[in-house]
Amino acid sequence: MSQTRPTALRTEPAAASALEDTRRANLARLFKPRSIAVVGASADPAKAGSQALKTLSRFPGKLVCVHPRETEIQGRPCYPSFADLPEPVDLAVLAIPARHCVRAAAEAAERGVGGVFIVSGGFGETGAEGAGLQDALGEICARTGMRLLGPNTSGFVNPAAGCIASFVPGVDTIGTGSVAVVAQSGGVNLSLGYLLDRLGEGVSIAAGLGNAVDVGTRDMLDLLAEDANTRAIALHLEGVTDGRALFETLKHVTPKKPVVAVVAGRADIGEFAVSHTGNLMGSRERTVAALTQAGAIVVDTLDELAQAAAVLSRRRMPPKAANAMALITGQAGPGLLITDALKAAGIALPELGPTTMETIEALLPPMTFIKNPVDTGRPGPGFPDVVRAAAEDEAIDAVLVFGISEPSVLDPAAALRPADEATGKPILFGTLGPAPDLQKARDDLAALGTPTVIGPDRLALAGTVLDADARHQWRLSHAAENAPSPAREKLTGPFDENAAKQLMRSYGIAAPRSVLGETREAALAAFAELRKPVVVKIAAEDVAHKTEVGGVILNVRDDDAFTAALDKIAAIPTKTPNRVLIEEMAPDGVELIVGGVRDPSWGPCVVIGLGGVQAEALSDSVVGLAPLSETDVAVMLDALRGKKLLDGFRGLPRCDRSAIAGVAIAVGQLLLDHPEIAEVEINPLRVNETGAVALDALVVLGGKP
Amino acid sequence: MSQTRPTALRTEPAAASALEDTRRANLARLFKPRSIAVVGASADPAKAGSQALKTLSRFPGKLVCVHPRETEIQGRPCYPSFADLPEPVDLAVLAIPARHCVRAAAEAAERGVGGVFIVSGGFGETGAEGAGLQDALGEICARTGMRLLGPNTSGFVNPAAGCIASFVPGVDTIGTGSVAVVAQSGGVNLSLGYLLDRLGEGVSIAAGLGNAVDVGTRDMLDLLAEDANTRAIALHLEGVTDGRALFETLKHVTPKKPVVAVVAGRADIGEFAVSHTGNLMGSRERTVAALTQAGAIVVDTLDELAQAAAVLSRRRMPPKAANAMALITGQAGPGLLITDALKAAGIALPELGPTTMETIEALLPPMTFIKNPVDTGRPGPGFPDVVRAAAEDEAIDAVLVFGISEPSVLDPAAALRPADEATGKPILFGTLGPAPDLQKARDDLAALGTPTVIGPDRLALAGTVLDADARHQWRLSHAAENAPSPAREKLTGPFDENAAKQLMRSYGIAAPRSVLGETREAALAAFAELRKPVVVKIAAEDVAHKTEVGGVILNVRDDDAFTAALDKIAAIPTKTPNRVLIEEMAPDGVELIVGGVRDPSWGPCVVIGLGGVQAEALSDSVVGLAPLSETDVAVMLDALRGKKLLDGFRGLPRCDRSAIAGVAIAVGQLLLDHPEIAEVEINPLRVNETGAVALDALVVLGGKP
Repeated sequence: MSQTRPTALRTEPAAASALEDTRRANLARLFKPRSIAVVGASADPAKAGSQALKTLSRFPGKLVCVHPRETEIQGRPCYPSFADLPEPVDLAVLAIPARHCVRAAAEAAERGVGGVFIVSGGFGETGAEGAGLQDALGEICARTGMRLLGPNTSGFVNPAAGCIASFVPGVDTIGTGSVAVVAQSGGVNLSLGYLLDRLGEGVSIAAGLGNAVDVGTRDMLDLLAEDANTRAIALHLEGVTDGRALFETLKHVTPKKPVVAVVAGRADIGEFAVSHTGNLMGSRERTVAALTQAGAIVVDTLDELAQAAAVLSRRRMPPKAANAMALITGQAGPGLLITDALKAAGIALPELGPTTMETIEALLPPMTFIKNPVDTGRPGPGFPDVVRAAAEDEAIDAVLVFGISEPSVLDPAAALRPADEATGKPILFGTLGPAPDLQKARDDLAALGTPTVIGPDRLALAGTVLDADARHQWRLSHAAENAPSPAREKLTGPFDENAAKQLMRSYGIAAPRSVLGETREAALAAFAELRKPVVVKIAAEDVAHKTEVGGVILNVRDDDAFTAALDKIAAIPTKTPNRVLIEEMAPDGVELIVGGVRDPSWGPCVVIGLGGVQAEALSDSVVGLAPLSETDVAVMLDALRGKKLLDGFRGLPRCDRSAIAGVAIAVGQLLLDHPEIAEVEINPLRVNETGAVALDALVVLGGKP
Repeated sequence: MSQTRPTALRTEPAAASALEDTRRANLARLFKPRSIAVVGASADPAKAGSQALKTLSRFPGKLVCVHPRETEIQGRPCYPSFADLPEPVDLAVLAIPARHCVRAAAEAAERGVGGVFIVSGGFGETGAEGAGLQDALGEICARTGMRLLGPNTSGFVNPAAGCIASFVPGVDTIGTGSVAVVAQSGGVNLSLGYLLDRLGEGVSIAAGLGNAVDVGTRDMLDLLAEDANTRAIALHLEGVTDGRALFETLKHVTPKKPVVAVVAGRADIGEFAVSHTGNLMGSRERTVAALTQAGAIVVDTLDELAQAAAVLSRRRMPPKAANAMALITGQAGPGLLITDALKAAGIALPELGPTTMETIEALLPPMTFIKNPVDTGRPGPGFPDVVRAAAEDEAIDAVLVFGISEPSVLDPAAALRPADEATGKPILFGTLGPAPDLQKARDDLAALGTPTVIGPDRLALAGTVLDADARHQWRLSHAAENAPSPAREKLTGPFDENAAKQLMRSYGIAAPRSVLGETREAALAAFAELRKPVVVKIAAEDVAHKTEVGGVILNVRDDDAFTAALDKIAAIPTKTPNRVLIEEMAPDGVELIVGGVRDPSWGPCVVIGLGGVQAEALSDSVVGLAPLSETDVAVMLDALRGKKLLDGFRGLPRCDRSAIAGVAIAVGQLLLDHPEIAEVEINPLRVNETGAVALDALVVLGGKP
């Protein structure tokens, strides 16, 4: 948390801690208020303040207005100022122009208001003047501990508390549910609220953060992790400025509550994004990697986000590296599409065990497919027992059931209950049919805690997100500890290839045996000692691109060739014409690139990619946040599109993946230990059956001093 | 059509043509019946026949039963047999066991019934006995011209005709609409019907083909292309056995009616698929390529299929190589996600013209983003004019509008009408809000012919499919004519490298200048004539892998090197030790693979891929059906993931794409001209700024003799 607190607070730990407690308590007051004041309501019903008052009409607690002249608006008592309030309210809704907000916020804080929600735009998103107002608001919050949602947002809803804090009419139709929404955009927050409502799910708390001067994503995650009404969190991110802190927060939240996220920025939408959020999007690839590594699930669309969060609010699976599922379908065609989607997502549908198949075979007509999926044909009386048999198969972690509504032959609750009671494993149900049938299935199955989804695609999605959640939590449970190595001296450089490789070796990364020849004589002596063939490389600080100038000579086997190589290098213009690096040639293998970068938001990251111009053109690389564990790297390598190149493809050696992991972990640790390093690149890292060797290495200083 | 007609019919053209007319007329009778007979209904309401009769209760035409003993069932008159029917019905529903169906079908045909729909399974999908029954049914249809839907399907619905021919209750709730469904699976047909109904769209005709003994996908496409109630077709394919014929049918249908398809088989689902459909899936990649080339749009899920077809049933765009769109959004966050999805799909959102921006700037508050997307902030009175201004921008082909429901400030129909009236361009609307608001927006906009979709993702999908339809129709309008070259002699082979290259040259494909040296003396003479350096390759029919045995020597520049190369090759064990191919070395470039294959279903196909082991590991290739046009190849190359390798990436030459096109077109023509060729492969095809050269070529005979 310390990265975003003003420095002044750090110097007085006790006061800081008290203020932190106040802030935490006020955050809960803001989102679960027992009393609310609206500022900006008037006799004019079109005003945002009047609309906000109206949408709060169901609020069961104390609801008042602050207005300089009126005594009553919409039947609610008015007070001339915050100071006049008989008691400090938990939440104040400021539906007034930006220029009046700072003073109102200051007065609210003075009166002990828990939090304010500022509707208006006209702050940081509009230029310097607005940014000044925004800074003033931030200062009030930091000083007093009052919390602020917004400005520039459509607000939040907490239907269970009857608190609809928004100026948008109709938001009060969003029902009460177990999914919380945290969106950087107010419009996306409303969109997700409506989408969840259309799924029959509703929300616990749904908040649009807007400019997020005070209340940010991490505050919401901390609040929701402990919120009894919230069982899953739907997260929307545009740009993330304090990524590393979000990463740490998520690592603590996702084991308690599943988090599903949409991250804007699949395409280049830079200019509009900056105009909207006021900050750069950053690398979406790194954002997705960080969220995943912290145990969250990233999907592409709001439709998927709402559906995935709804499913996970009803069921989670225990952490596991890979899950096997069974599919029981009443209709073959949809079953084929579900199977297809699950397999495309990498989920195993293993053949059921012999005992299971025997049981199922006895329950179904002959000639049906029973290996997995099980195609029951039109559901018959044995359907519930088929589902239970599949669930009882010890190789199966979850069962998906699909059946088009046909009440005379399929009662969903009766079909799924035996399996649920016998095994406790997740049994998901997908269906289609007339709306009343679907509603009945959903209601009946809700009692079992079983997610019901509409259609084959969503059943496949449900299985996919349950699996992803379990896999990501398993990976998170195998995450590396964030422990720097014993104190290391600050590096000063400069790093030529030789020095860079020495640094790599000190971190346990193998590099070919080599000798730096400062003179021709030294070079000749070194050559005699090394295993042939060798590669001879120019080692001149003033030559950047060794290969382009003919400064790398491969496969030097004998004295003649070696002296010819020295002659060739000596002819290259440089201040140190005879300085060469002589290196034993590494065995053949697959070439990878392992890089370490310091992301402005996410901090030290390790990138692993396949070497070569084609892999580069296809951007086939994966990224993870340091520190990395063996598990992290294993998962990352599995995400390379060209991963089969690591497994003995077309006569290439089968690569030692643990050796790659060792290098990647070490590169991450190097960045963690040495904040003065901006960037590291091992290119290529040559890998075969027995290990990984850094053939070239680059270290760039200039990170955080 | 001839590929699926029994051979006997071909011999009598006049009779065949009359039968064809009968078949066509009977197809229409089956799906738009004025009279129906149900076989298999009884006093037992659980029987499929009784259920089928019940779901037909709204049928406005004549509805009777065929039953050996009853005189009335559910108030409908019964007749003992088809022969006893007072008049031949258009449709007979056979809800009786498989073993009774052949006789019933024969009797129906005898009585002049237009078509039968067979509910039951127990035919080809269950083994030899069932296959025999199925063959008998097919024979009756082929002989008499009566049509057959099924067997083994849930039937079809034609709500406008009040004809719900299915045993599944609830299907009668699916509403009347303009989207037709053609599904290989009965379960998928019902799924799509329900999904379309949930979108508020309904269906015109929705048919599940089941085992498709007689009525197949092509029959349905032909019928629907001319069906006045159908404005778009949603197609579901599992395996396609007569792909080339389907390709030809689709090329004629898609310009009349947009076709959107889901194709099973993204993952390996072979065994279950075979059990279900009774045939192999074939290559999904080729299926998708064929559908696209024929002007259809392939999507991944049934949800997308229903939504895309619904949108296209309301609007199409004219054929165009690429479309530019504008987005007007009332909320920035959803607007960002829509922009992101459109750009990820390759759709241009160009900056609006200066006049347009000036107009819009005057309509909106300062500091809003107006370049495109236009972020209006909360919609104000100027919103309709903003939409119109964007639509009037001459660079813009379609406008997407997103606004969360807020009736006091945004009336969707009023907002979109001016743009629609002024330009006639497609104006799509996406929204979210309370259900009654959405219904009102949909109803109001339906009058404008404007598609309304729910949520940001679906608005992006709507834009994407409109664009895809226009692009695919443009490509189709530039398709190659299916014209074989002037008669060519049948090739007999065998084809060694030299002969293969000669064949390539005869089709205008460049290969390096080369000489085949049969003897050492001839080789030496040839070497003197050729431009150096050359490559020397063993040319022995009994050596398959030239490189592996050291039979390819590159970069031979002088006589010493050449004689050494000859010596080396002469040492390789073969019956013809001195036979060598001496070839001028081609300039550097990018290496591609161009192959021609004869797909069992789709016929001659051309595959283009990037060369090298990495591209192979990443399966980075594209496929098209011969004959190919320049446009086809341009679109195919654009679909390569590593396409930037063709455009001067990292110092590689910028490739001559029209030279690649020339080669691909020629390979396709070669397969069309020579059915005796099974396979052709040019690997590598080396390409640079000025052309493309086949460095090696393989021709395998053994296709259709």
